[in-house]
Amino acid sequence: PDSAARQVIAARDATLTKPPGSLGRLEALVAWLGAWQGRPDPMLDRVRVVIFAGNHGVVAQGVSPWPASVTAQMIGNFAAGGAAINQIARSAGATLRVVPLAGLAPTADFTQAPALDDDAFLDAVSAGHAAVEADMDLLCLGEMGIGNTTAAAAMAAGLFGGSGHDWAGRGTGLDAAGVAHKARVIDAALARHADVRHDPLAVARCLGGRELAAILGAVLAARHRRIPVLLDGFVCTAAAAPLACLNPSGLAHTTLAHRSAEAGHAALARALNLSPLLELDLRLGEATGAALAVPLLRAAVACHAGMATFAQAGVSERT
Amino acid sequence: PDSAARQVIAARDATLTKPPGSLGRLEALVAWLGAWQGRPDPMLDRVRVVIFAGNHGVVAQGVSPWPASVTAQMIGNFAAGGAAINQIARSAGATLRVVPLAGLAPTADFTQAPALDDDAFLDAVSAGHAAVEADMDLLCLGEMGIGNTTAAAAMAAGLFGGSGHDWAGRGTGLDAAGVAHKARVIDAALARHADVRHDPLAVARCLGGRELAAILGAVLAARHRRIPVLLDGFVCTAAAAPLACLNPSGLAHTTLAHRSAEAGHAALARALNLSPLLELDLRLGEATGAALAVPLLRAAVACHAGMATFAQAGVSERT
Repeated sequence: PDSAARQVIAARDATLTKPPGSLGRLEALVAWLGAWQGRPDPMLDRVRVVIFAGNHGVVAQGVSPWPASVTAQMIGNFAAGGAAINQIARSAGATLRVVPLAGLAPTADFTQAPALDDDAFLDAVSAGHAAVEADMDLLCLGEMGIGNTTAAAAMAAGLFGGSGHDWAGRGTGLDAAGVAHKARVIDAALARHADVRHDPLAVARCLGGRELAAILGAVLAARHRRIPVLLDGFVCTAAAAPLACLNPSGLAHTTLAHRSAEAGHAALARALNLSPLLELDLRLGEATGAALAVPLLRAAVACHAGMATFAQAGVSERT
Repeated sequence: PDSAARQVIAARDATLTKPPGSLGRLEALVAWLGAWQGRPDPMLDRVRVVIFAGNHGVVAQGVSPWPASVTAQMIGNFAAGGAAINQIARSAGATLRVVPLAGLAPTADFTQAPALDDDAFLDAVSAGHAAVEADMDLLCLGEMGIGNTTAAAAMAAGLFGGSGHDWAGRGTGLDAAGVAHKARVIDAALARHADVRHDPLAVARCLGGRELAAILGAVLAARHRRIPVLLDGFVCTAAAAPLACLNPSGLAHTTLAHRSAEAGHAALARALNLSPLLELDLRLGEATGAALAVPLLRAAVACHAGMATFAQAGVSERT
């Protein structure tokens, strides 16, 4: 990050007509945007939402109440403008791109085999990397994939310890018995891949999925291009988590936009020391939580750019 | 509220292409807007921010690090477009109106006398009432008044019990010694007006201020006109609180937009059973927290109005 930009931003902030610090996290957001964009006047002209989509072999274990065919159907819905993220992205002034991975071919059932082999994992990471063009001011990441909260929970357990019970949640709408079954499926996967525990990239390959690997690739590419990133809910956070395990500052260019209602997300955010901007009980994915936070960043940037200084406004400073 | 509109909204929500409940509080916000607007298709075309401004005699007790002259200076800054709320309101697509009360004449120092006499209190309530025109889809309320977190803390103690220590906060930037002094000033006011404790309107008159009384009047008028209201931080919430004390559903047409970093606000929100939409550590007032939440409502309404149904999109429902 650009510490000179951060210093210019802090110096201007101190002159604006408000008590110091009184805009709270909005002030920190401007400094974060400016530091990663390398601009003392952060921009949000080109805000892009990217959704990666994939299917999951573990769906064969009955971990979702929805059929896997919904993944492809929802891609059609995104294209037609009918999904929640279409409305929220437009409302936020962001453009939307959807990237289906490997023709939506499912991963292997990770209770039986690694979800992906080396080539398939790298292909998905590369697809995520390639989706990050240089001309973005902010990247909002999200996903679609029936069964992927099971993969996210398995990855969280593989990276940070704990069992299926600790990380499994309702996903798209399981009842208590369904969550208990999902936890047992995750435990089976953890037992099957006990050798990769705490090896971040191997966890992502064996217990993740294509859209999760693509998110990892996109977060990496954004770091190279110095594009700030808003992370969406549980799946998106789990997908990016290996980067924090590999490097303590690996997610410094990201902000967690929303803490999902999905059970494991609060614990995962704590493990990563990420403080969400929003907590509105969404549990939809599709980057909805990320896009919802964009107007907060716009407001923060508007305050920094547009407010008068004490001198300009003739307002007395504190005594 | 219009329960027919609420039912139509719930019925449509159940058909939209998302797991039931997965948009969390966004779904509840649409139902709340529609029920109060009396529309199954809630609108946010005319969003108005109103800031009431007043001065406080208790400033003579040294409760703020800023001179009282800042209240008038900030009204100039609002008019010139230089304050934080100007940027945030524009960013949210809301219009801004500022209403200075009684020529910014200060209230009486409430450690010595009631802040307002009956006529002055009713004048301020009426001014608030009159500021609510019929043609609003949503009203965001806020305030400006050097010293008014002291009045808000005194009102909270007067309505809900406790001492100055329990409710005093840093306001616009007191240090620990300043907060302790502020708490003692509040205790003196509570002792002076012990006879009005738990009498909601008398508490508002004796321990409040003109801009707080105007907020009370505006919240009342919005109830009559069935205009949903977003409440800003600690001062705004304290100002509206007497209506909840008079009637358990007195604030049902309001939503608390932001939980302020001001110390007493979390406790006050709990006492009123209000769950804030945002927690971003703002402590500025000016309706900034309320206006920041407007895009969340726009996104919620956009989802409800614009999403495809399962039938329209050809998406399978859960098994």
